[in-house]
Amino acid sequence: MRFFSDNAAPVHPKVMAALAKANEQDSAYDGDAYSARLNGAFSDLFETDVEAMWVATGTAANSLALAALCQPHQGVICHEEAHIEQDEAGAPGFYTGGAKLMLVGDEGAKVAAETVKSHCVAIRDDVHQVQPAAVSITNATEYGLVYRPDEVAAIAQICAERGLGLHMDGARFANAVAMLGCHPADVTWKAGVDILSFGFVKNGGMNAEALVFFDRDLAHISRYRLKRAGHLQSKGRYLAAQILAMLDGDLWLENARAANEGAQIIARAAGERLLYPVEANEAFIRLSASEAETLRRAGFDFYDWGEGQARLVTSWTQSAADIQPLANAIAAL
Amino acid sequence: MRFFSDNAAPVHPKVMAALAKANEQDSAYDGDAYSARLNGAFSDLFETDVEAMWVATGTAANSLALAALCQPHQGVICHEEAHIEQDEAGAPGFYTGGAKLMLVGDEGAKVAAETVKSHCVAIRDDVHQVQPAAVSITNATEYGLVYRPDEVAAIAQICAERGLGLHMDGARFANAVAMLGCHPADVTWKAGVDILSFGFVKNGGMNAEALVFFDRDLAHISRYRLKRAGHLQSKGRYLAAQILAMLDGDLWLENARAANEGAQIIARAAGERLLYPVEANEAFIRLSASEAETLRRAGFDFYDWGEGQARLVTSWTQSAADIQPLANAIAAL
Amino acid sequence: MRFFSDNAAPVHPKVMAALAKANEQDSAYDGDAYSARLNGAFSDLFETDVEAMWVATGTAANSLALAALCQPHQGVICHEEAHIEQDEAGAPGFYTGGAKLMLVGDEGAKVAAETVKSHCVAIRDDVHQVQPAAVSITNATEYGLVYRPDEVAAIAQICAERGLGLHMDGARFANAVAMLGCHPADVTWKAGVDILSFGFVKNGGMNAEALVFFDRDLAHISRYRLKRAGHLQSKGRYLAAQILAMLDGDLWLENARAANEGAQIIARAAGERLLYPVEANEAFIRLSASEAETLRRAGFDFYDWGEGQARLVTSWTQSAADIQPLANAIAAL
Amino acid sequence: MRFFSDNAAPVHPKVMAALAKANEQDSAYDGDAYSARLNGAFSDLFETDVEAMWVATGTAANSLALAALCQPHQGVICHEEAHIEQDEAGAPGFYTGGAKLMLVGDEGAKVAAETVKSHCVAIRDDVHQVQPAAVSITNATEYGLVYRPDEVAAIAQICAERGLGLHMDGARFANAVAMLGCHPADVTWKAGVDILSFGFVKNGGMNAEALVFFDRDLAHISRYRLKRAGHLQSKGRYLAAQILAMLDGDLWLENARAANEGAQIIARAAGERLLYPVEANEAFIRLSASEAETLRRAGFDFYDWGEGQARLVTSWTQSAADIQPLANAIAAL
Repeated sequence: MRFFSDNAAPVHPKVMAALAKANEQDSAYDGDAYSARLNGAFSDLFETDVEAMWVATGTAANSLALAALCQPHQGVICHEEAHIEQDEAGAPGFYTGGAKLMLVGDEGAKVAAETVKSHCVAIRDDVHQVQPAAVSITNATEYGLVYRPDEVAAIAQICAERGLGLHMDGARFANAVAMLGCHPADVTWKAGVDILSFGFVKNGGMNAEALVFFDRDLAHISRYRLKRAGHLQSKGRYLAAQILAMLDGDLWLENARAANEGAQIIARAAGERLLYPVEANEAFIRLSASEAETLRRAGFDFYDWGEGQARLVTSWTQSAADIQPLANAIAAL
Repeated sequence: MRFFSDNAAPVHPKVMAALAKANEQDSAYDGDAYSARLNGAFSDLFETDVEAMWVATGTAANSLALAALCQPHQGVICHEEAHIEQDEAGAPGFYTGGAKLMLVGDEGAKVAAETVKSHCVAIRDDVHQVQPAAVSITNATEYGLVYRPDEVAAIAQICAERGLGLHMDGARFANAVAMLGCHPADVTWKAGVDILSFGFVKNGGMNAEALVFFDRDLAHISRYRLKRAGHLQSKGRYLAAQILAMLDGDLWLENARAANEGAQIIARAAGERLLYPVEANEAFIRLSASEAETLRRAGFDFYDWGEGQARLVTSWTQSAADIQPLANAIAAL
Repeated sequence: MRFFSDNAAPVHPKVMAALAKANEQDSAYDGDAYSARLNGAFSDLFETDVEAMWVATGTAANSLALAALCQPHQGVICHEEAHIEQDEAGAPGFYTGGAKLMLVGDEGAKVAAETVKSHCVAIRDDVHQVQPAAVSITNATEYGLVYRPDEVAAIAQICAERGLGLHMDGARFANAVAMLGCHPADVTWKAGVDILSFGFVKNGGMNAEALVFFDRDLAHISRYRLKRAGHLQSKGRYLAAQILAMLDGDLWLENARAANEGAQIIARAAGERLLYPVEANEAFIRLSASEAETLRRAGFDFYDWGEGQARLVTSWTQSAADIQPLANAIAAL
Repeated sequence: MRFFSDNAAPVHPKVMAALAKANEQDSAYDGDAYSARLNGAFSDLFETDVEAMWVATGTAANSLALAALCQPHQGVICHEEAHIEQDEAGAPGFYTGGAKLMLVGDEGAKVAAETVKSHCVAIRDDVHQVQPAAVSITNATEYGLVYRPDEVAAIAQICAERGLGLHMDGARFANAVAMLGCHPADVTWKAGVDILSFGFVKNGGMNAEALVFFDRDLAHISRYRLKRAGHLQSKGRYLAAQILAMLDGDLWLENARAANEGAQIIARAAGERLLYPVEANEAFIRLSASEAETLRRAGFDFYDWGEGQARLVTSWTQSAADIQPLANAIAAL
């Protein structure tokens, strides 16, 4: 059983069904009937007028968001272990035209408002130093921690004081909302988020994420940039259809709850081994090389995460019955 | 009946079936079993060792190819009506870091070897003028004309003399090969092409094109750039599976033949109205505003293409019976 | 005697004297007393509040101006023989992050308002085509023609209607004003110019041009970009001092008048050979290869300008006595 | 008396004299007699064949060097307090097309070979993480420490093992060589440096630094990039003449020795206050806010360098008699 990544999971049957249903002639690019429904669907979900667009990957979604918030000569404050810094091959530098990621280092890849503030204060306000234009946070974080609405709002407050935009990388936004039990608006626009990368691929989609603009003025330019980046697919209806299927009946939330519950099974078994509280669908545990070897020999796959540590990711597709054997194996170590 | 664009056509049932079949857990990104088969499948097809990668759009494929062939301070010679110049929102400028498209203007969007040569000769060999690094041609062209192998080879000869790379935008490569009746190798690497954007989306795919490197040294860097552009999808197997389905049993060629034959039905009806010979799946015809109005009122959709001209595109999904009414309507004008 | 380029001329003695006088300790970068006077000096000259900054080259000045007016995904309309297109090694593409120069082709490298308008009209207003954001004109043009205030105003009118910025490359702005006999305001901000590259190097300076922002909101961001491009010299006072010396007592105008008068001597001798009216300090003449050879053997240097054509440039340092021998030699051909 | 920065110092009389002497007609750009001598002059100095070019600022020199060593999707390892990271407004990101500065954090802004190695080892060799292509070190460092030849060689050894280029930011290279007492070759190409930014402006020049390519293959492309960045001055002879004057009779070394000696006067007075050994022309000392106030009231200017710390910079123009009063004032605190 694979606990490598939620990317390894298959596509949800309802998404596959939606693709099949969408398979007829329609207008090219985003001129089709499905794409036309995105703004409305996300405005309904977030209970405010938003602009939304499909984009094939989280990396592209994040980078487009940062480029909308940051000029080439400026910078984006983010955590030093953020996906945009660690795992996107420099995509933010590409999309922004060379803007700088300004790294901060709080625990669990979760940025504190105070850290953002002190980072800003340390920058001389002259042309020699790159000036920040935005903050990017990841919810849930790379270590599966979840920002509460008030934590986001505190960062947004610093942003407002200093004229910075606020981006949320929501590759696992669904898992965060599922954990919080709040309305998705509470942890986004109501807390001061300008742009959200809303992930669906790890959560049952095939190849469609959404870029949601709460600051709708920023959407217009991003439509040009999306095309310029080669991301305006000529049969966009197959991306829109996936997203609409995920939103329909809150499938996104249902899948995330399932994945989160799976991680809790592991968390309970891991006990003292846990490096961070398990809040979403990832568990990071202490695990010696020989213990890792034991688990792998028993048929469980996962990533080592630095020395003596491992990452275990659950997905919507894994039932309690699927996960219990791993929990048992960990408990038995 | 829509003759706007082959992008409007649905996805071929065999491609849909392949997606359904691929829908199980596998490794993320391009680490899956389907993606692993691409190099082999294209090497078999082209009868030479190539490297191949999936990419969601032709715009991204083209731009990645140009970036592999051209440094930021250099230029790419192409037709002034090429898709990369007219319809890709400046994507080549983005991917290459600001390289220059150097425009030439032959008939039917088809670049002649002699034109490439004279364009090069006119550039001063100093640091003040941008120096060309590559040539990009489109086969079939934006006006549905097809380069013959010897025409490509003549351009490649100029490229070799001047140290230029040669890219072929093959958004409708299948249509070109179907028309030529040659082996796909004859009009690509055997004629001197370094990189091919091999289009599948207009020809029955959903959202996967292939970037084929005959010069395999250029592939390595492009894998980094693909990721950096946000095009390394986390569930890449769904792109690879589409492409493999298209290659299987030469479905790509079968579909292209069907589309080409449809265009011939229109061509025969259009007669003297034709602006260019119909060689692929597009017919460009003279059509007055009132004639266009007549056709549209009869239920036929298509693009105006400048004043008094129209573009009619057929696709793999349209049967002779589907197209004949349009042909009749044109003949009756 | 050299008629290659006004760049070959030495530095004016008053500029050299100003450099010597400035040679004492002062604050670094643009924090010095000389640089602090630039805004005031140019505001006085143009009789309106402007922001001005020194920059070492015209290429950098032009590119910074374009980057201030144009986002990476947009375009700048200019003449196909403009210096920014032909002779700046793709610098606009570098500074703008890959924006597109959109070429038009009127006579004498002089863009007509009507041409700008028709170019704009032909661009589809969608995300597939690059949208223009600015127009750049050169005064005097690459062929030594001078835009009159009403010609500039007509272009600015189109710009205003379409939300485009207007940049003037004034590498030979002094020569243009000298010819027009108007106030420098008349042909710039009063006619609708947003940013002026004001050249001094060809006209007696050593290595300082000025970038003058009539739209002062655009200056702020350009100060960051200037530094980011490595153009914020650490001893900027030596550039500011040059410019102030050129402005002092209208030395810039005096020098330009001298250069223009020199070109008139050639113009009178060239008569029917002239390809364009001589309005600034350049004469373009018909000259066969053997005639060119005759002149060169007599000791006159100049550039060939395409087949059967030559460019003769005069500078502030050449007296009538210096130029008369060339005029005589041309007349004697 | 100012101890802010060596940038505040005037231009050396011999450099002014060289400018006056160069002030006659010559060919434009770098086609003049002075520029033609640069390759030879630096080859003589370094006792190996090099290519050298003038460039107006250290920021541009550094960025051109990095762009020659690093593709846009790669990275450059440097110290987190390096000038390229802290004080160049993101210029490396601009010139490289968005490459990443990969920060390491040793003492005194001096990078150890072992640190480079462990930084490289921690990077996964896949397309998701940015791969390093070069290392950039500053000699003397931002804290006035000097790399010994064997320290440079140890870094170069790691670079060679991993295929990384090695750049030396020598804004104060003269001060480093003056301190080392070695041949300039020993701490550059003989130790494995590929490209050197050789600073002259802080050391008596006006506005000309040199970019010296020990790996001459990298020079060719940089000539295009220099022009493309707007740094190919049209009267380049005035930059070449400055550099030649600085090289003549080893004026560069003489000036650096004078500046270094001045710093030693401060060092001796500062004693326990010193934060780092004084090896070049900068002293960093502990200084409380009230002590700083005392010094400033006595007429001494300098930068605060974080809380309770100050930076004192000496230059070639300050004699022992100029500096002794500051030394006395510090001793008297």
